[in-house]
Amino acid sequence: MTTPSPPTTFTAVPVPHTADELDAITYNADGLVGAIVQDAADGAVLMFAWMNAESLSRTLETGRTWFWSRSRQEYWCKGETSGDRQYVRNIHYDCDGDALLVTVDQEGAGACHTGSRTCFYRAFGDGVDGESTAS
Amino acid sequence: MTTPSPPTTFTAVPVPHTADELDAITYNADGLVGAIVQDAADGAVLMFAWMNAESLSRTLETGRTWFWSRSRQEYWCKGETSGDRQYVRNIHYDCDGDALLVTVDQEGAGACHTGSRTCFYRAFGDGVDGESTAS
Repeated sequence: MTTPSPPTTFTAVPVPHTADELDAITYNADGLVGAIVQDAADGAVLMFAWMNAESLSRTLETGRTWFWSRSRQEYWCKGETSGDRQYVRNIHYDCDGDALLVTVDQEGAGACHTGSRTCFYRAFGDGVDGESTAS
Repeated sequence: MTTPSPPTTFTAVPVPHTADELDAITYNADGLVGAIVQDAADGAVLMFAWMNAESLSRTLETGRTWFWSRSRQEYWCKGETSGDRQYVRNIHYDCDGDALLVTVDQEGAGACHTGSRTCFYRAFGDGVDGESTAS
């Protein structure tokens, strides 16, 4: 992974795609596919959330991340409320098409609603005496 | 992310953990939690698979990745057949405890059963004329 200097402002760029590529995605019984979001700047994994076909389509077409909230049963565009928007650089999908890897430029403080840059801010062993595996 | 020179041989080291940390993990209706596997060497996301409480426990205790195969309904230890073993360096969990980020030293050719280093070897746009977003 390269570590470019982050630009001060990001732009949303639609992601080119084909019907065959969309057909390669497999959704679970709830119509969802898991999406891993990774920071383009340094490879940090920022969050994990769910997309359905419509939110994947919105993500590809707008160049911003759109997810499906299972708890609220609604679409959400990351950062619309917090300002911590994600600008999509590319989207990979895995060998069996049931997971997405979304590489983004992360705007603002970070991806997590707690204020942390990444949602993965806790590690096993953090609570063990005299030892921390947190990075 | 730092990019250390990979050692020629890896060792399996148990991951310290507490009961409180285990209690922070939330399993879905099938008793599973999603696990993102990331290469410690360069931050590449290698694969996404599922763990149940027992496979997470085995992973923590052995320092090797253990998953639950939904299709075969059995535990599998990554690399036991292929030789492409994963040696766990740390495991983070996300803000709501329903996703794991497992950082590993990847042995052998890579993580994917296709022979690719990562399961995420295809990107949207690869099939678009004159354009590729694959890295």
